Amino acid sequence: MQLLKDAILAKGRVDSEDILKVDSFLNHQIDIQLMNEIGKEFKERYKDEIVTKILTIEASGIAVACITAQYFGIPVLFAKKTESKNLDAETYESRVFSFTKDKYYQIRVSKRYLNETDRVLIIDDFLANGSAALGLKEIVVQANAKLVGVGIVIEKGFQQGGKILKDQGIRLDSLAVIESMKPGSIVFKP
Amino acid sequence: MQLLKDAILAKGRVDSEDILKVDSFLNHQIDIQLMNEIGKEFKERYKDEIVTKILTIEASGIAVACITAQYFGIPVLFAKKTESKNLDAETYESRVFSFTKDKYYQIRVSKRYLNETDRVLIIDDFLANGSAALGLKEIVVQANAKLVGVGIVIEKGFQQGGKILKDQGIRLDSLAVIESMKPGSIVFKP
Repeated sequence: MQLLKDAILAKGRVDSEDILKVDSFLNHQIDIQLMNEIGKEFKERYKDEIVTKILTIEASGIAVACITAQYFGIPVLFAKKTESKNLDAETYESRVFSFTKDKYYQIRVSKRYLNETDRVLIIDDFLANGSAALGLKEIVVQANAKLVGVGIVIEKGFQQGGKILKDQGIRLDSLAVIESMKPGSIVFKP
Repeated sequence: MQLLKDAILAKGRVDSEDILKVDSFLNHQIDIQLMNEIGKEFKERYKDEIVTKILTIEASGIAVACITAQYFGIPVLFAKKTESKNLDAETYESRVFSFTKDKYYQIRVSKRYLNETDRVLIIDDFLANGSAALGLKEIVVQANAKLVGVGIVIEKGFQQGGKILKDQGIRLDSLAVIESMKPGSIVFKP
Protein backbone atom coordinates (compact mmCIF):
# COMPACT_ATOMS: atom_id res chain seq x y z
CA MET A 1 0.00 0.00 0.00
CA GLN A 2 1.86 3.00 -1.35
CA LEU A 3 0.29 5.67 0.89
CA LEU A 4 1.36 3.70 3.95
CA LYS A 5 4.88 3.11 2.64
CA ASP A 6 5.18 6.83 1.91
CA ALA A 7 4.17 7.61 5.50
CA ILE A 8 6.69 5.12 6.87
CA LEU A 9 9.49 6.59 4.74
CA ALA A 10 8.54 10.17 5.56
CA LYS A 11 7.82 9.79 9.28
CA GLY A 12 9.26 6.47 10.46
CA ARG A 13 12.45 6.50 12.48
CA VAL A 14 14.70 3.48 12.90
CA ASP A 15 16.35 3.33 16.28
CA SER A 16 18.72 0.77 17.64
CA GLU A 17 17.44 -2.67 18.67
CA ASP A 18 15.43 -3.17 15.47
CA ILE A 19 12.81 -0.69 16.64
CA LEU A 20 10.88 1.17 13.93
CA LYS A 21 9.20 4.18 15.50
CA VAL A 22 5.97 5.11 13.79
CA ASP A 23 4.56 6.81 16.84
CA SER A 24 3.72 9.95 14.86
CA PHE A 25 0.91 8.19 12.97
CA LEU A 26 0.31 4.60 14.09
CA ASN A 27 0.86 3.70 17.73
CA HIS A 28 0.99 6.80 19.92
CA GLN A 29 -0.29 9.66 17.83
CA ILE A 30 -2.73 8.29 15.27
CA ASP A 31 -3.34 9.72 11.79
CA ILE A 32 -7.03 8.97 11.41
CA GLN A 33 -7.15 9.77 7.68
CA LEU A 34 -4.40 7.24 7.03
CA MET A 35 -6.17 4.71 9.28
CA ASN A 36 -9.25 5.14 7.12
CA GLU A 37 -7.31 4.35 3.96
CA ILE A 38 -5.84 1.31 5.71
CA GLY A 39 -9.32 0.19 6.76
CA LYS A 40 -10.58 0.49 3.19
CA GLU A 41 -7.62 -1.52 1.94
CA PHE A 42 -8.29 -4.39 4.37
CA LYS A 43 -11.95 -4.40 3.32
CA GLU A 44 -10.94 -4.49 -0.35
CA ARG A 45 -8.68 -7.47 0.29
CA TYR A 46 -11.36 -9.39 2.22
CA LYS A 47 -14.35 -8.27 0.17
CA ASP A 48 -15.11 -11.83 -0.93
CA GLU A 49 -14.91 -13.28 2.59
CA ILE A 50 -17.56 -13.43 5.26
CA VAL A 51 -16.14 -11.90 8.44
CA THR A 52 -18.21 -11.59 11.61
CA LYS A 53 -15.68 -10.15 14.03
CA ILE A 54 -12.37 -8.32 14.07
CA LEU A 55 -10.04 -9.50 16.82
CA THR A 56 -7.07 -7.46 18.01
CA ILE A 57 -4.97 -6.93 21.11
CA GLU A 58 -4.63 -3.90 23.33
CA ALA A 59 -3.41 -1.28 23.04
CA SER A 60 -2.07 -0.19 19.68
CA GLY A 61 -4.10 -2.65 17.62
CA ILE A 62 -7.37 -1.07 18.77
CA ALA A 63 -7.18 2.05 16.59
CA VAL A 64 -6.66 0.29 13.28
CA ALA A 65 -9.10 -2.49 14.21
CA CYS A 66 -11.92 -0.04 15.03
CA ILE A 67 -11.45 2.13 11.97
CA THR A 68 -11.26 -0.99 9.79
CA ALA A 69 -14.39 -2.52 11.36
CA GLN A 70 -16.45 0.38 10.02
CA TYR A 71 -15.89 -0.88 6.48
CA PHE A 72 -16.99 -4.39 7.43
CA GLY A 73 -19.92 -3.30 9.58
CA ILE A 74 -18.96 -5.72 12.36
CA PRO A 75 -17.82 -5.46 15.99
CA VAL A 76 -14.25 -5.37 17.26
CA LEU A 77 -13.09 -7.56 20.11
CA PHE A 78 -9.78 -6.78 21.77
CA ALA A 79 -7.80 -9.19 23.90
CA LYS A 80 -6.80 -7.80 27.28
CA LYS A 81 -3.25 -7.99 28.55
CA THR A 82 -3.91 -7.16 32.16
CA GLU A 83 -6.08 -8.43 34.96
CA SER A 84 -9.19 -6.32 35.28
CA LYS A 85 -12.34 -6.39 37.36
CA ASN A 86 -14.17 -5.59 34.14
CA LEU A 87 -13.33 -8.94 32.58
CA ASP A 88 -15.49 -12.02 32.97
CA ALA A 89 -14.12 -15.00 34.88
CA GLU A 90 -14.70 -17.28 31.89
CA THR A 91 -12.04 -16.45 29.32
CA TYR A 92 -10.01 -17.87 26.50
CA GLU A 93 -6.36 -17.32 27.33
CA SER A 94 -2.98 -17.55 25.70
CA ARG A 95 0.52 -16.28 26.29
CA VAL A 96 2.37 -13.66 24.25
CA PHE A 97 5.96 -12.47 24.38
CA SER A 98 6.51 -8.77 23.73
CA PHE A 99 9.96 -7.85 22.49
CA THR A 100 9.27 -4.13 22.78
CA LYS A 101 8.36 -4.62 26.45
CA ASP A 102 10.67 -7.60 26.98
CA LYS A 103 8.24 -9.79 28.90
CA TYR A 104 5.58 -12.46 28.64
CA TYR A 105 1.99 -11.66 29.40
CA GLN A 106 -1.33 -13.49 29.36
CA ILE A 107 -3.97 -12.29 26.94
CA ARG A 108 -7.63 -12.90 27.63
CA VAL A 109 -10.93 -12.76 25.76
CA SER A 110 -14.29 -13.32 27.41
CA LYS A 111 -15.97 -16.52 26.23
CA ARG A 112 -19.15 -14.49 25.94
CA TYR A 113 -18.03 -12.76 22.75
CA LEU A 114 -16.44 -15.43 20.57
CA ASN A 115 -17.85 -18.79 19.58
CA GLU A 116 -18.00 -21.42 16.84
CA THR A 117 -20.27 -19.31 14.63
CA ASP A 118 -17.65 -16.57 14.27
CA ARG A 119 -15.44 -15.94 11.26
CA VAL A 120 -12.56 -13.86 12.56
CA LEU A 121 -10.17 -11.41 10.96
CA ILE A 122 -7.20 -10.67 13.21
CA ILE A 123 -5.92 -7.10 12.79
CA ASP A 124 -2.78 -5.68 14.36
CA ASP A 125 -0.40 -2.78 13.82
CA PHE A 126 2.83 -4.81 13.68
CA LEU A 127 3.99 -8.32 12.86
CA ALA A 128 7.51 -9.20 13.90
CA ASN A 129 8.17 -12.55 15.58
CA GLY A 130 4.47 -13.43 15.31
CA SER A 131 3.89 -13.98 18.99
CA ALA A 132 0.84 -11.70 19.27
CA ALA A 133 -0.79 -13.05 16.09
CA LEU A 134 -0.22 -16.64 17.21
CA GLY A 135 -1.62 -15.84 20.64
CA LEU A 136 -4.75 -14.39 19.03
CA LYS A 137 -5.00 -17.37 16.68
CA GLU A 138 -4.85 -19.67 19.71
CA ILE A 139 -7.85 -17.82 21.16
CA VAL A 140 -9.76 -18.26 17.88
CA VAL A 141 -8.95 -21.98 18.03
CA GLN A 142 -10.11 -22.26 21.64
CA ALA A 143 -13.43 -20.65 20.64
CA ASN A 144 -13.83 -23.13 17.74
CA ALA A 145 -14.24 -20.10 15.51
CA LYS A 146 -12.92 -19.85 11.95
CA LEU A 147 -9.80 -17.74 11.34
CA VAL A 148 -10.35 -16.01 8.00
CA GLY A 149 -7.02 -14.20 7.94
CA VAL A 150 -4.52 -11.91 9.61
CA GLY A 151 -4.28 -8.27 8.50
CA ILE A 152 -1.15 -6.39 9.49
CA VAL A 153 -0.23 -2.76 8.93
CA ILE A 154 3.57 -3.16 9.05
CA GLU A 155 5.37 -6.50 8.85
CA LYS A 156 9.04 -6.75 9.70
CA GLY A 157 9.81 -9.14 6.85
CA PHE A 158 13.27 -9.87 8.22
CA GLN A 159 11.74 -11.52 11.29
CA GLN A 160 10.02 -14.89 11.35
CA GLY A 161 6.37 -14.02 12.06
CA GLY A 162 5.20 -13.93 8.45
CA LYS A 163 6.82 -17.26 7.60
CA ILE A 164 5.46 -18.95 10.71
CA LEU A 165 1.89 -17.86 9.95
CA LYS A 166 2.07 -18.87 6.28
CA ASP A 167 3.63 -22.22 7.19
CA GLN A 168 0.52 -22.85 9.30
CA GLY A 169 -1.66 -22.17 6.27
CA ILE A 170 -2.92 -18.86 7.62
CA ARG A 171 -3.82 -16.14 5.14
CA LEU A 172 -1.67 -13.08 5.82
CA ASP A 173 -2.18 -9.60 4.41
CA SER A 174 0.54 -7.16 5.39
CA LEU A 175 0.09 -3.70 3.90
CA ALA A 176 3.80 -2.87 4.10
CA VAL A 177 6.55 -5.45 4.45
CA ILE A 178 9.97 -4.20 5.47
CA GLU A 179 12.83 -6.18 3.97
CA SER A 180 15.59 -4.42 5.88
CA MET A 181 16.10 -1.30 7.93
CA LYS A 182 18.79 0.64 9.72
CA PRO A 183 18.98 4.21 10.98
CA GLY A 184 18.32 6.41 7.95
CA SER A 185 17.25 3.59 5.65
CA ILE A 186 14.06 1.53 5.25
CA VAL A 187 13.74 -0.92 2.35
CA PHE A 188 10.40 -2.55 1.51
CA LYS A 189 9.89 -5.94 -0.09
CA PRO A 190 8.81 -5.47 -3.70
CA MET B 1 -27.73 10.55 24.75
CA GLN B 2 -30.70 8.23 24.54
CA LEU B 3 -29.20 5.61 22.21
CA LEU B 4 -26.31 5.14 24.63
CA LYS B 5 -28.57 4.97 27.68
CA ASP B 6 -30.68 2.36 25.90
CA ALA B 7 -27.56 0.29 25.23
CA ILE B 8 -26.46 0.57 28.86
CA LEU B 9 -29.89 -0.52 30.10
CA ALA B 10 -30.16 -3.37 27.60
CA LYS B 11 -26.61 -4.70 27.80
CA GLY B 12 -24.93 -3.29 30.91
CA ARG B 13 -24.48 -5.54 33.92
CA VAL B 14 -23.88 -4.26 37.43
CA ASP B 15 -21.62 -6.49 39.45
CA SER B 16 -20.43 -6.10 42.96
CA GLU B 17 -17.80 -3.50 43.83
CA ASP B 18 -19.53 -0.73 41.89
CA ILE B 19 -18.46 -2.26 38.59
CA LEU B 20 -20.66 -1.59 35.56
CA LYS B 21 -19.81 -4.08 32.88
CA VAL B 22 -20.34 -2.72 29.39
CA ASP B 23 -17.85 -5.07 27.80
CA SER B 24 -20.36 -6.16 25.17
CA PHE B 25 -20.21 -2.78 23.40
CA LEU B 26 -17.69 -0.37 24.93
CA ASN B 27 -14.50 -1.74 26.44
CA HIS B 28 -13.86 -5.31 25.31
CA GLN B 29 -16.18 -5.98 22.43
CA ILE B 30 -16.88 -2.68 20.66
CA ASP B 31 -20.10 -1.78 18.86
CA ILE B 32 -18.70 0.36 16.06
CA GLN B 33 -22.09 1.72 14.93
CA LEU B 34 -22.78 2.98 18.45
CA MET B 35 -19.26 4.44 18.63
CA ASN B 36 -20.02 6.38 15.46
CA GLU B 37 -23.15 7.88 16.99
CA ILE B 38 -21.12 8.78 20.08
CA GLY B 39 -18.46 10.40 17.90
CA LYS B 40 -21.09 12.48 16.10
CA GLU B 41 -22.55 13.57 19.43
CA PHE B 42 -19.17 14.78 20.73
CA LYS B 43 -18.62 16.70 17.48
CA GLU B 44 -22.07 18.27 17.78
CA ARG B 45 -21.31 19.41 21.31
CA TYR B 46 -17.94 20.89 20.37
CA LYS B 47 -18.89 22.18 16.93
CA ASP B 48 -18.20 25.79 17.94
CA GLU B 49 -14.79 25.03 19.42
CA ILE B 50 -11.43 24.75 17.71
CA VAL B 51 -9.90 21.42 18.65
CA THR B 52 -6.53 20.32 17.26
CA LYS B 53 -6.01 17.02 19.05
CA ILE B 54 -7.95 14.35 20.90
CA LEU B 55 -6.12 12.97 23.91
CA THR B 56 -7.01 9.68 25.55
CA ILE B 57 -5.43 6.90 27.57
CA GLU B 58 -4.81 3.29 26.64
CA ALA B 59 -6.50 0.96 26.28
CA SER B 60 -10.26 1.33 26.30
CA GLY B 61 -10.28 5.06 25.53
CA ILE B 62 -8.65 4.47 22.15
CA ALA B 63 -11.71 3.11 20.35
CA VAL B 64 -14.05 5.98 21.15
CA ALA B 65 -11.27 8.56 20.68
CA CYS B 66 -10.40 7.29 17.18
CA ILE B 67 -13.97 7.02 15.96
CA THR B 68 -14.71 10.49 17.37
CA ALA B 69 -11.60 12.01 15.78
CA GLN B 70 -13.00 11.22 12.34
CA TYR B 71 -15.74 13.81 12.88
CA PHE B 72 -13.21 16.45 13.91
CA GLY B 73 -10.64 15.58 11.23
CA ILE B 74 -7.79 15.67 13.74
CA PRO B 75 -5.26 13.18 15.16
CA VAL B 76 -5.63 11.13 18.31
CA LEU B 77 -2.87 10.91 20.88
CA PHE B 78 -3.05 8.22 23.53
CA ALA B 79 -1.12 8.25 26.78
CA LYS B 80 0.81 5.06 27.46
CA LYS B 81 0.56 3.24 30.75
CA THR B 82 3.55 0.98 30.37
CA GLU B 83 7.23 1.32 29.64
CA SER B 84 7.93 0.70 25.99
CA LYS B 85 10.93 0.87 23.72
CA ASN B 86 8.65 2.56 21.23
CA LEU B 87 8.25 5.64 23.39
CA ASP B 88 10.58 8.64 23.24
CA ALA B 89 12.75 9.44 26.23
CA GLU B 90 11.31 12.95 26.43
CA THR B 91 7.80 12.64 27.84
CA TYR B 92 5.15 14.43 29.81
CA GLU B 93 4.22 12.23 32.74
CA SER B 94 1.62 11.98 35.43
CA ARG B 95 0.27 9.40 37.81
CA VAL B 96 -3.14 7.74 37.71
CA PHE B 97 -4.86 5.40 40.13
CA SER B 98 -7.00 2.67 38.60
CA PHE B 99 -9.72 1.31 40.83
CA THR B 100 -10.58 -1.46 38.37
CA LYS B 101 -6.98 -2.63 38.44
CA ASP B 102 -6.32 -1.47 42.01
CA LYS B 103 -2.94 0.16 41.42
CA TYR B 104 -1.13 3.35 40.51
CA TYR B 105 0.60 3.68 37.18
CA GLN B 106 2.55 6.34 35.35
CA ILE B 107 1.09 7.66 32.11
CA ARG B 108 3.33 9.13 29.44
CA VAL B 109 2.98 11.21 26.30
CA SER B 110 5.90 12.04 24.02
CA LYS B 111 6.76 15.77 24.05
CA ARG B 112 7.00 15.53 20.28
CA TYR B 113 3.22 15.41 19.83
CA LEU B 114 1.76 18.00 22.18
CA ASN B 115 2.72 21.65 22.56
CA GLU B 116 1.46 25.13 23.35
CA THR B 117 -0.31 25.49 19.99
CA ASP B 118 -2.64 22.58 20.73
CA ARG B 119 -6.28 22.82 21.79
CA VAL B 120 -7.09 19.47 23.35
CA LEU B 121 -10.28 17.51 23.84
CA ILE B 122 -9.82 14.67 26.32
CA ILE B 123 -12.00 11.66 25.49
CA ASP B 124 -12.43 8.57 27.66
CA ASP B 125 -14.89 5.74 28.08
CA PHE B 126 -15.51 6.17 31.82
CA LEU B 127 -15.34 8.88 34.46
CA ALA B 128 -15.52 7.70 38.07
CA ASN B 129 -13.10 9.17 40.61
CA GLY B 130 -11.57 11.39 37.94
CA SER B 131 -8.03 10.12 38.30
CA ALA B 132 -7.46 9.35 34.61
CA ALA B 133 -9.00 12.63 33.41
CA LEU B 134 -6.95 14.62 35.92
CA GLY B 135 -3.80 12.77 34.88
CA LEU B 136 -4.47 13.63 31.24
CA LYS B 137 -5.25 17.23 32.19
CA GLU B 138 -1.90 17.41 33.99
CA ILE B 139 -0.20 16.35 30.74
CA VAL B 140 -2.05 19.09 28.83
CA VAL B 141 -0.86 21.59 31.45
CA GLN B 142 2.75 20.38 31.20
CA ALA B 143 2.59 20.88 27.42
CA ASN B 144 1.23 24.44 27.89
CA ALA B 145 -1.63 23.40 25.62
CA LYS B 146 -5.23 24.53 26.03
CA LEU B 147 -7.75 22.07 27.48
CA VAL B 148 -10.99 22.65 25.58
CA GLY B 149 -12.99 20.04 27.43
CA VAL B 150 -13.43 16.49 28.63
CA GLY B 151 -15.81 14.16 26.78
CA ILE B 152 -16.91 11.01 28.61
CA VAL B 153 -19.09 8.17 27.42
CA ILE B 154 -20.31 7.00 30.85
CA GLU B 155 -19.94 9.02 34.05
CA LYS B 156 -20.56 7.41 37.40
CA GLY B 157 -22.36 10.42 38.82
CA PHE B 158 -22.29 8.97 42.33
CA GLN B 159 -18.50 9.26 42.40
CA GLN B 160 -16.52 12.47 42.69
CA GLY B 161 -14.83 12.79 39.28
CA GLY B 162 -17.44 15.02 37.66
CA LYS B 163 -17.56 17.42 40.61
CA ILE B 164 -13.76 17.63 40.84
CA LEU B 165 -13.43 18.52 37.14
CA LYS B 166 -16.21 21.11 37.22
CA ASP B 167 -14.79 22.66 40.41
CA GLN B 168 -11.59 23.21 38.46
CA GLY B 169 -13.53 25.07 35.78
CA ILE B 170 -13.14 22.27 33.24
CA ARG B 171 -15.89 21.80 30.67
CA LEU B 172 -17.29 18.28 31.02
CA ASP B 173 -19.58 16.51 28.56
CA SER B 174 -20.74 13.10 29.77
CA LEU B 175 -23.11 11.37 27.36
CA ALA B 176 -24.68 9.23 30.08
CA VAL B 177 -24.51 10.02 33.80
CA ILE B 178 -25.44 7.26 36.20
CA GLU B 179 -27.07 8.48 39.37
CA SER B 180 -27.21 5.11 41.09
CA MET B 181 -26.84 1.47 40.25
CA LYS B 182 -27.09 -1.95 41.79
CA PRO B 183 -27.45 -5.43 40.35
CA GLY B 184 -30.54 -5.33 38.14
CA SER B 185 -31.03 -1.56 38.33
CA ILE B 186 -29.36 1.41 36.66
CA VAL B 187 -30.76 4.91 37.17
CA PHE B 188 -29.56 7.85 35.07
CA LYS B 189 -29.44 11.49 36.11
CA PRO B 190 -32.22 13.38 34.36
